[in-house]
Amino acid sequence: MGSMTVPTEPWRLTASEAATLMRNGDMTVEDYAKSLLSRIKQRDSEVNAWAYLNPHLVLARARELDAIAPEKRGPLHGVAVGVKDVILTKDMPTQHNSPIFVSNQPSTVDAGNIMTLRANGALIFGKTTTTEFAACSQGDVHQNLTSCAHDPGRTPGGSSSGSGASCGDFQVPLSLGTQTGGSTIRPGSFNGIYAFKPTWGAISREGLAQYSMTCDTLGLYSRSPEDLELLSQVFQLKDDKPVPSEPFSVKGSKIAFIKTHVWPKAGPGTKNAWEKAKDILTKEGATVEEIDLPEEFANFVPWHEAVLAGEGRTSFLGAYTLSKDLLHDIMQGHVENKKNVSRKAQLEAYDGSAKLRPVWDDIASKYDAVLTPSAVDEAPKGLDNTGDASFCSMWTLLHAPMLNIPGFAGENGLPIGLSLVSPRYTDQNVVHVAKTIGPLFEKEGGWTRKNA
Amino acid sequence: MGSMTVPTEPWRLTASEAATLMRNGDMTVEDYAKSLLSRIKQRDSEVNAWAYLNPHLVLARARELDAIAPEKRGPLHGVAVGVKDVILTKDMPTQHNSPIFVSNQPSTVDAGNIMTLRANGALIFGKTTTTEFAACSQGDVHQNLTSCAHDPGRTPGGSSSGSGASCGDFQVPLSLGTQTGGSTIRPGSFNGIYAFKPTWGAISREGLAQYSMTCDTLGLYSRSPEDLELLSQVFQLKDDKPVPSEPFSVKGSKIAFIKTHVWPKAGPGTKNAWEKAKDILTKEGATVEEIDLPEEFANFVPWHEAVLAGEGRTSFLGAYTLSKDLLHDIMQGHVENKKNVSRKAQLEAYDGSAKLRPVWDDIASKYDAVLTPSAVDEAPKGLDNTGDASFCSMWTLLHAPMLNIPGFAGENGLPIGLSLVSPRYTDQNVVHVAKTIGPLFEKEGGWTRKNA
Repeated sequence: MGSMTVPTEPWRLTASEAATLMRNGDMTVEDYAKSLLSRIKQRDSEVNAWAYLNPHLVLARARELDAIAPEKRGPLHGVAVGVKDVILTKDMPTQHNSPIFVSNQPSTVDAGNIMTLRANGALIFGKTTTTEFAACSQGDVHQNLTSCAHDPGRTPGGSSSGSGASCGDFQVPLSLGTQTGGSTIRPGSFNGIYAFKPTWGAISREGLAQYSMTCDTLGLYSRSPEDLELLSQVFQLKDDKPVPSEPFSVKGSKIAFIKTHVWPKAGPGTKNAWEKAKDILTKEGATVEEIDLPEEFANFVPWHEAVLAGEGRTSFLGAYTLSKDLLHDIMQGHVENKKNVSRKAQLEAYDGSAKLRPVWDDIASKYDAVLTPSAVDEAPKGLDNTGDASFCSMWTLLHAPMLNIPGFAGENGLPIGLSLVSPRYTDQNVVHVAKTIGPLFEKEGGWTRKNA
Repeated sequence: MGSMTVPTEPWRLTASEAATLMRNGDMTVEDYAKSLLSRIKQRDSEVNAWAYLNPHLVLARARELDAIAPEKRGPLHGVAVGVKDVILTKDMPTQHNSPIFVSNQPSTVDAGNIMTLRANGALIFGKTTTTEFAACSQGDVHQNLTSCAHDPGRTPGGSSSGSGASCGDFQVPLSLGTQTGGSTIRPGSFNGIYAFKPTWGAISREGLAQYSMTCDTLGLYSRSPEDLELLSQVFQLKDDKPVPSEPFSVKGSKIAFIKTHVWPKAGPGTKNAWEKAKDILTKEGATVEEIDLPEEFANFVPWHEAVLAGEGRTSFLGAYTLSKDLLHDIMQGHVENKKNVSRKAQLEAYDGSAKLRPVWDDIASKYDAVLTPSAVDEAPKGLDNTGDASFCSMWTLLHAPMLNIPGFAGENGLPIGLSLVSPRYTDQNVVHVAKTIGPLFEKEGGWTRKNA
């Protein structure tokens, strides 16, 4: 590998760029970490993305990584990763934005995905803010409120608030979220970054807070599709069908656009992105087709609610029994089953959605790519409501890969994305497609990333 | 509540008996804990059920519980619980019987179910042995080999080896296991105790080691069905249909016996238990009927393998990346997909089993109770193979409640159980039925518990 020039501000680098420099020894992990820390110092009072960040720990770990011989350096050597504060990290506390779990004590245990990242050389940087237990759409009630990377008066989305904002704001090149409804994709859209929720089960969930066993999925953030490819290699996401060695070609491809049954919620920004995306892809030579899902798919709205209500009873019982008064009303309501969702309704939701998963796989496999809205619109004003997950919940319960591509702009100039969705366990392919469509949308969609 | 007499050897008590004495102040938790510790001291060199047991910690916690005012004592006040060493406990290490995770450091985090138990007054006693990551049928390769509670030359079953043996041997009245194939029910049968795997998702899995997201379920052990009732109240297992206030009546009931497609594996002990159980229930006035499941249910054998192979790729990637050489061949094979199970086969297993779950619910709901074998036979000789999970895997993948009832004896006089199975989310009812059928089998099945 040839040597690259180290930029004066390494915090601007993508993960892939930074990893190459550090693996080659052209940049130390310590210098890189210092650059990110300086960026955070400059921006933290406005963005407030961190629930726990210990610069001394970061620099100590950076120096440990610098001591690794070049031939033993992993693919993520030195790359900083922000970790949503519902994921266990052995050297940092995990607080879930819950007054019950306020702590300065490290978890001593790494989540499965953190083990994998560390063993590949990642620099686990700090813990990012989350709504309480990643289970409300209300902002941080116990911590400082996090802002959108592009407007301090707007929400970064949630529940992966700090992961979306920190990555979008160039404080880290990669971060981890989780998604139960739209908690990874929505902050991706609001903060103008790539956001990837792989197939349910494709990445370990050991050591993550539990809300819904059926829906909870680890999510990945980056500012470039190449970085998602790097992460998908590290996590060994493997489709049955190998990904072609040549780039995905829009020309000659067949691309479906699916509005879904919640389309009436779409705001002007999402509607504009929708039309623009169709134009861009058509102009590039794709055959673009708007398709409707079978009527049964409308059931995903009540099914998703029933699954969360039923599984929330189980998931929050521990915290509830420990300290009910310190638990958010939403989670208290789950444990007490205030919505009065029967086990019968919960089981019907399981069985109904399970029946439609292969139906979705069949529909999607007829196209080279499928696009769908990521969010209702650009990030709304105010910090105490993280927005609406409607456009994501169905895909989460379908266990389908979903990947937000940024590039479009809303009426206030804030970013809006659209998402690729695809059959289960076609994770590599969806990243492959994003590597072509991403730069296209970023170039022609109308929103431009600052600082890149 | 009237005052009870404290026995000279409190270790003989069931959880319900011990809780009543301690809540009433008739016995201190410290005295109770000392009695259990003395029992363990006497028996540990033979049974080897503990991966971590710190008597100082146990007694310190016991004294803390004794300091709680009587009116604030929980339903499990002072009751000792053994915890399988794949479940996080804030004051004890969690080592998974893996050389990668050998540690004396507490996890600092409690699993969701441990939070619930502690908040209800339980005395978390120690960590019990497991096969490596609860994912092999081979005995402890890194720790001392655990023995069956009733024969030091025989396996206690696995993977919940120590939990099954310690409860069966009166070292603790309650213990926690997990089940991905037959890891809770089989040790239940081998050690002559009640073993309950509730509906998938009915108890939190947060903080448990992950093998299969689709199958992993927390399991509960006790020596009386009343103790399972107590635990099911603590974990708020609630059916849609309230359980009748009067006991389940065998007389006039309709009881199905299901051999399943793996019946040819049944040994003489299980065959004897099968006939004896039908006789006992018929004599008591039940209408007993042997039924066959539809032919499609035979697919559960390959489906279970495909699910574990596919999900094992994900679950063990962290440990594999961290330290492949210290990981058991089985888990290495999972990560490397040595069985070459395609994503397509994995998805067909998901969709096929999902389709049959409501079919099972319908079949089972036509009967007042359904019985099925728990294991191939009594515990086999030798400690390095924990036995065969064949009779359990289907029920685990069906997400159905399964409850082992002891009472029968094999050719060598060792215990054998049969299991109640029932529709999803009829957990309270299955415990209710066990409260009647359990004592019947224990009285007339031919195996007698020592020490009770």
